[in-house]
Amino acid sequence: MSVALDSQALDQIFREAHTAGAFTDEPVTDEQLQAIYDLVKFGPTAFNQSPLRITLVRSDEARARLLPLLAEGNRAKTGAAPLVAILSADNEFHEELPRLFPAFPQAADLFFGERPVRERSALLNAAMQSAYFIVGIRALGLAAGPMNGMDHAGIQKEFLDDDHTPFMVVNIGQPGENAYYPRSPRLAYDEVVTTI
Amino acid sequence: MSVALDSQALDQIFREAHTAGAFTDEPVTDEQLQAIYDLVKFGPTAFNQSPLRITLVRSDEARARLLPLLAEGNRAKTGAAPLVAILSADNEFHEELPRLFPAFPQAADLFFGERPVRERSALLNAAMQSAYFIVGIRALGLAAGPMNGMDHAGIQKEFLDDDHTPFMVVNIGQPGENAYYPRSPRLAYDEVVTTI
Repeated sequence: MSVALDSQALDQIFREAHTAGAFTDEPVTDEQLQAIYDLVKFGPTAFNQSPLRITLVRSDEARARLLPLLAEGNRAKTGAAPLVAILSADNEFHEELPRLFPAFPQAADLFFGERPVRERSALLNAAMQSAYFIVGIRALGLAAGPMNGMDHAGIQKEFLDDDHTPFMVVNIGQPGENAYYPRSPRLAYDEVVTTI
Repeated sequence: MSVALDSQALDQIFREAHTAGAFTDEPVTDEQLQAIYDLVKFGPTAFNQSPLRITLVRSDEARARLLPLLAEGNRAKTGAAPLVAILSADNEFHEELPRLFPAFPQAADLFFGERPVRERSALLNAAMQSAYFIVGIRALGLAAGPMNGMDHAGIQKEFLDDDHTPFMVVNIGQPGENAYYPRSPRLAYDEVVTTI
C-alpha cells in the first residue's frame, strides 16, 4: 500500500511549482530529456494510444524560424530558454495501436477508423501527456514554461505535417531570476466538485 | 534550485503506477478528495482557465444510473469501486476568466468569444487537468482507474447539461487484489522525439 509523497515532493510538482518565464544558461541535455520521457511515457492514455510527439528545437536556425510564429509576449523568453519543445498530437496514432495495445488489437479499426474521431482523441490524450510532461520536468528538478500563444497553423506548416497538430510550446531549464509571476487565483473546491 | 524526487516517489507517480481495475473496500472520503484537489488545482492551464469539473457519484441511486452508460467491460469494476468521479469540461469557463486570470481580464472576450473555440480549449485544458488529477491521486497514495469507454452523450444527458462535456470516468481507491493488467509497451524515445 502506498502512502502520500512527502510535503517537499508535493510542493515541487504541484504546490510551489509555477510556469517559468526566465531560465539560467545551464543547458538541458538529451540525456535529461530521455530521463523525462522515461517517466512521462508511463502516464495513462486511452487504449495506451500515446499520441504525443515532441520536436526539440536545438538549432539556432530552427529557433529563428519559430520565434516569429509565437505570440509577441512569448518571443523573448523563448529566445533565451535553454531548450524549447514543440508538442504535437499524432492524428495517425492508430497505426501503432496494435503494438501499443496488444490486449485488443481490433481497437484501431473499431474505434478510430474516422479521422475526425482520431483528431479529437489525439488532442485529448496528447494534452494529458503534455500534463505528464510538465509534471515529469518538475519531478526531475527542472522548470517548465508551457505556452499556447502561437500561430498554430504556421507552426504546423513550418515544422510538421498535416498528420501532426501542434498545441503547445514548452520552454525547459533551470529557473532564473524573476522566473515567476504571482500565483493566479484558483477555483474553490465547491465550485469544481459536485456530489450526486 | 530543485533536485529530482527520490526514486520511490518517481515509481509511485509514474514508473510503477498502473491503471487500477480492482479496489479494497476502504472508502475514499471527501477530505481525501479535497486534499487531491488542493494539489491538482495548481497544475497549469492556458490563461489559468481551469475548465475541469468533477461529479462525485456517491449515492447508490446515481451509481445505478451510471453503470448502464459505461462500456460493458467497465461496469463491474465501477460498480465495486469505493469512489467514482465523472470528469467534464466546462465549455463556459470563460465566465470565470476575469477572476482566474486577473493579469489580462480581456482574454475572455478576445480569445473565447466563439463557442467552438471554447469547446476545443475546454477539452484540451480539462484533459491536462485530468492528468494532474490522476497524478494527484497517486501522489497521495491512492490508485486511479481512468476510463473513456462510455456513452458520452448519455452521461451528459443523465448527469450534466449542454455546457459540460464529459470525457472520462475515474474509479478511485486503494488497489485491491489483481488490480493491475501487465504493462503495455511504450513507444521508444526516438519514435516520439525529433530534434531540429
